[in-house]
Amino acid sequence: MERTLVKDIQAHEGKEIMLSGWIHRIRDLGGVTFIILRDRSGRCQIVTNEAMELTQETVVRAYGKVCANDKAPGGYELALDHFDVLGPAAAELPFPVNGDPSKVGIELTLDQRMISLRNPQILSIFRLQASLVQYFAEYLRGRDFTEIKSSKMIGTGTEGGTSVFSVEYFDRKVFLAQSPQFYKQAMVSSGLERVFEIGHAYRAEKHETSRHINEYVSLDVEMGFIESEMDIIKLERGLLAYIFDRVNENNREDMEAWGATCPTGDQVLKAPVISHDEAKQIIRDKLDRRVFEISPEGERALCAWSEEEHGTPLVFVNEFPRRKRPFYTYPKGTKTMSFDLLFRGLEITTGGRRINEYAMLKETLPRFGMTEEQLGGYGDIFKYGCPPHGGFAIGLERLTQKIMGLGNIKECSLFPRDRKRVTP
Amino acid sequence: MERTLVKDIQAHEGKEIMLSGWIHRIRDLGGVTFIILRDRSGRCQIVTNEAMELTQETVVRAYGKVCANDKAPGGYELALDHFDVLGPAAAELPFPVNGDPSKVGIELTLDQRMISLRNPQILSIFRLQASLVQYFAEYLRGRDFTEIKSSKMIGTGTEGGTSVFSVEYFDRKVFLAQSPQFYKQAMVSSGLERVFEIGHAYRAEKHETSRHINEYVSLDVEMGFIESEMDIIKLERGLLAYIFDRVNENNREDMEAWGATCPTGDQVLKAPVISHDEAKQIIRDKLDRRVFEISPEGERALCAWSEEEHGTPLVFVNEFPRRKRPFYTYPKGTKTMSFDLLFRGLEITTGGRRINEYAMLKETLPRFGMTEEQLGGYGDIFKYGCPPHGGFAIGLERLTQKIMGLGNIKECSLFPRDRKRVTP
Repeated sequence: MERTLVKDIQAHEGKEIMLSGWIHRIRDLGGVTFIILRDRSGRCQIVTNEAMELTQETVVRAYGKVCANDKAPGGYELALDHFDVLGPAAAELPFPVNGDPSKVGIELTLDQRMISLRNPQILSIFRLQASLVQYFAEYLRGRDFTEIKSSKMIGTGTEGGTSVFSVEYFDRKVFLAQSPQFYKQAMVSSGLERVFEIGHAYRAEKHETSRHINEYVSLDVEMGFIESEMDIIKLERGLLAYIFDRVNENNREDMEAWGATCPTGDQVLKAPVISHDEAKQIIRDKLDRRVFEISPEGERALCAWSEEEHGTPLVFVNEFPRRKRPFYTYPKGTKTMSFDLLFRGLEITTGGRRINEYAMLKETLPRFGMTEEQLGGYGDIFKYGCPPHGGFAIGLERLTQKIMGLGNIKECSLFPRDRKRVTP
Repeated sequence: MERTLVKDIQAHEGKEIMLSGWIHRIRDLGGVTFIILRDRSGRCQIVTNEAMELTQETVVRAYGKVCANDKAPGGYELALDHFDVLGPAAAELPFPVNGDPSKVGIELTLDQRMISLRNPQILSIFRLQASLVQYFAEYLRGRDFTEIKSSKMIGTGTEGGTSVFSVEYFDRKVFLAQSPQFYKQAMVSSGLERVFEIGHAYRAEKHETSRHINEYVSLDVEMGFIESEMDIIKLERGLLAYIFDRVNENNREDMEAWGATCPTGDQVLKAPVISHDEAKQIIRDKLDRRVFEISPEGERALCAWSEEEHGTPLVFVNEFPRRKRPFYTYPKGTKTMSFDLLFRGLEITTGGRRINEYAMLKETLPRFGMTEEQLGGYGDIFKYGCPPHGGFAIGLERLTQKIMGLGNIKECSLFPRDRKRVTP
């Protein structure tokens, strides 16, 4: 007999069917047993008069007849004929798969990741995340962007900083890439002009916060033939508006699991662009004290301001000072053609225009204590003709976290890595 | 003035336009200069009577009038008014961007990767590759598969083998994942049932061959509620038939650059399934000597046989002996429910059904010299109810190589990593 998915049972009213899935819940009312079966499409009630010796999470085929029942969730249930067990389950679950995950601490949730991911509410985070990746690529492909896959093992530490992981690579050391920055620039310059990459990025940062993980998925974009960072902001506005509209269309159920809402595309388009100096002034006014940096508290204040003044939880901050940006950022006096995007109090994007002329890059290096040699092959991109270009990266887990309204970024990584956690 | 793309110039005949791109070629005929401009959409001829002091690969805006000219490639050319230089280029290119890459050795091509990727013929490899990733995901999403992103840094060497790279992870060591095997099994078991992942995989293998690289992109698939590896073979047949049909529809130009052809979807559907024993017999007959393993030479013989007997360059080999497969492979007597897919003489896929019951897995471990402890969190997937499932992985670079008919897999990785090569 062909398998029927839970979501399709009403089309089979009165007929014998076979469902397959996990035993989500068992309620033995003495004489009658109600069982909830879970498959990839949803959950449905199975009813039987026989005593059942099933454990929760057992994987079964359930044979029976579809009956209408107003009291059953969805209005239909399966009157059980019999079960076949496909995958037995031990009695004591290490995580309440059918419970409320907010009642379980994050440590247990992550320690028991192999099982906690079965919790439908937790799993909904990753259904949404899969959609975000899909919509991201859809939008960009529709605008002539080409997907690239660049190496994550790099021979030189060009990007600087001590926060890189090193890999024993045969008889030498290499580093895990902190971003595909130079590779995406190389691919703009190769003639593809417009590229994106969906890939892992690695940061060996020691701090333990609710907004950092040591391995994350970076949604990277880079585009040639721009004038300034404003072209990149415009691109990201269009991209996020598309993604959010698609989420609102297709991921309502995933969001409802967390009581979450996603801004509309229109709200993204309304996101203001303010300079770094203006941002500090707004934070100063909001917090009523002197401000030297945009701290996490400041980011929350800016988003609150944007919500009040512009009716949107997003705000772009541009014109960061040169010393706050990497050496390859295009200068604009003492400022730079760079920006961050804040969403619901969290920075989810860094971007900007990059230096595209070798002479300007060479001039910039000493200012950052760098030499031409340190540029390595990176310099070739600019020596041999490179268009004005720029780009940005969105942290996939941060975007997921902010849409779902979750407290910790680790909840938004299937198998998160932090200073102490490297399993499962 | 808005930019016009090269592919659109004929729509602007007689009008003033602006093109942007790279100076691909310059032919100074004394008095008249022909310039080929390259942008992401194609190439076009620019003609001028003025002497030009441009270097090849300079990035320019070219202003002028579109004129019909039968002798120009594409039938139209730009009569130049003037150029703006956006990105100057040094005079001596380290790689012949407008030349025939087959006349340059692979070492120079890879040493000068930042520039060799600009060669349109070389770049076409990666346009095709981007399409393969897109079609792969399209097909699977259309069949209810959910995309996952799993960690590439793993705390335990469960998969075994010495060919793993180790990473200095704060005060301990972790390993780069050889595959997302356990994670995709966990996600089938989580209730997603059908998952795929597009991600990097790492193999610290020392050998230097034309078919191995140490970092590659793995197109991974895993599906629940199957009976045997035949369900997985059926899935891969459908998937590859779709991908190949899409390639033939949309990537003709990329393939023409290499004089390449892609099999039709029908040819994929005709691919025979033969057992490991039958395969050895066929190789024996072909090579006229005793055969103990399916060597690279044997793989070529099998594909030649499939071409002759079945009119397709693909052949599935199933029922590998247990000792040739990993411990988690589902047994079938002394054989296993496993398969390889060979395409044009190269193995591009390994797959099969996996053990889904904890008791069977436990029984299997000693045979492979393993203990329950070594399973770590992996065991939990099966302890608590796991459906029968299986899957496969396609090596993206190998698939690209075989469609394009290229001699070395390194040509199909943007920034390939081998024992000696870790830059650019």
